[in-house]
Amino acid sequence: MQRTPPQTTSPASRILGVDPGLNITGYAVIEPREKRLHVCEAGVVRSTQRRSLAYRVREIHDGLAEVIASLKPAAMALEELYSHYDRPRTSILMGHARGVICLAAAEADIEVTSYNATQVKLILTGNGRAPKSQMQQAIRRELALVKMPEPADIADALAIALCHHYLAAKAKAVAAHRMP
Amino acid sequence: MQRTPPQTTSPASRILGVDPGLNITGYAVIEPREKRLHVCEAGVVRSTQRRSLAYRVREIHDGLAEVIASLKPAAMALEELYSHYDRPRTSILMGHARGVICLAAAEADIEVTSYNATQVKLILTGNGRAPKSQMQQAIRRELALVKMPEPADIADALAIALCHHYLAAKAKAVAAHRMP
Repeated sequence: MQRTPPQTTSPASRILGVDPGLNITGYAVIEPREKRLHVCEAGVVRSTQRRSLAYRVREIHDGLAEVIASLKPAAMALEELYSHYDRPRTSILMGHARGVICLAAAEADIEVTSYNATQVKLILTGNGRAPKSQMQQAIRRELALVKMPEPADIADALAIALCHHYLAAKAKAVAAHRMP
Repeated sequence: MQRTPPQTTSPASRILGVDPGLNITGYAVIEPREKRLHVCEAGVVRSTQRRSLAYRVREIHDGLAEVIASLKPAAMALEELYSHYDRPRTSILMGHARGVICLAAAEADIEVTSYNATQVKLILTGNGRAPKSQMQQAIRRELALVKMPEPADIADALAIALCHHYLAAKAKAVAAHRMP
C-alpha cells in the first residue's frame, strides 16, 4: 500500500479509480499537479474471508467511504463487470462488491463512470489487447512511478483512473472547441 | 402495498424476507402472534429506472434500511442468486442490489440467511418444483390472507420469510431436544 499525505490542491480534478472485488478491491486517487499527474493515494480494501457476505460487503463499503471522505475525489471510475460471463458465480459476488462501492459514491454525491478492460487498454496504450507488461509500462510512465505498486489490483485501479482522466480531458477540450 | 401498523410484541422472532431486484425489491416482515403467523408489513422498494446505477442502489439500500429501522426484525432471509446463470447481465445487476441489501442488514447487525427457490418451495409445499398456484395457496393458508398481495415480488418475499421461520423453528426444536 502506497501512502502519501493527501494534498488539498484542486480536488475538483481528483479522480478515484476502483477495481472492484469481493476479496480485494483496489483503489487509486490521482490528480493533476503542475502539469503532471500525481498519485495522492493508492491501496486496497480487503474483506475478511471467513466472515459472512453481509459483513464483507460492509467492510468494502466502509473502506471506500473512508477513502472518499479523506481524499474527496470529484469523480469515480469503475471497472465494468459484464465481461466476466464465463465465471458467473464470481461475477455475481463481484456485483455485490460493486453495488456497495457505487453506493459509497452515491452517498458522497460523486458521479460514477464505468469502463471495460478493452477501453482502458486502448486509451493507455493505443492497443485494446495490450499485454500486462505494456500496461504497466504506460502506468509507470504516465505517473512517473519508480516501480509498480503491488498487488495488481492497485495497478488496475490506477489504469482506470488514468483512462477517466484522459477521456474527461478530451470531452472538456471538445466542449470548449464547440463554444461560440 | 400492504401496510398494517407495526406492533411491538416479540421482535426477537420477527423475520424480514427479501426478494432482491434492481427494479423492484419485494420485502415482507412476519412474526408469530398468539400461535399464528402475522404479516407486520409487506411491500416493495422501487428504484428510478432512468437514474444512474449508483443512485438506484442507494434508493434500494435506503428503502430497506428504513424498513429495518422501523420494524426491527431479528433476522433477514434472502433469495439466493446463483440459480440465474442463464441471464448473466441481470444476475450481475441483481448482485448489486443484493450487495446493498446485505449491507443494510450488516449495518443493523442482523444475520442474513440465503435460500434458493427450490428450498423455499420444498419447505412451503413439500414439492421443490411446486407451481406458482400451489405456492400462493400455501402462503395464503399459512398467513391467513384473504387475497394474494401484488406485485408477485411481495409474495416471493413472504415465501422466503416463511421458509426461514419454519427452518429456524425446526433448528430450535432440534437444539432443545439435544440439551441434557
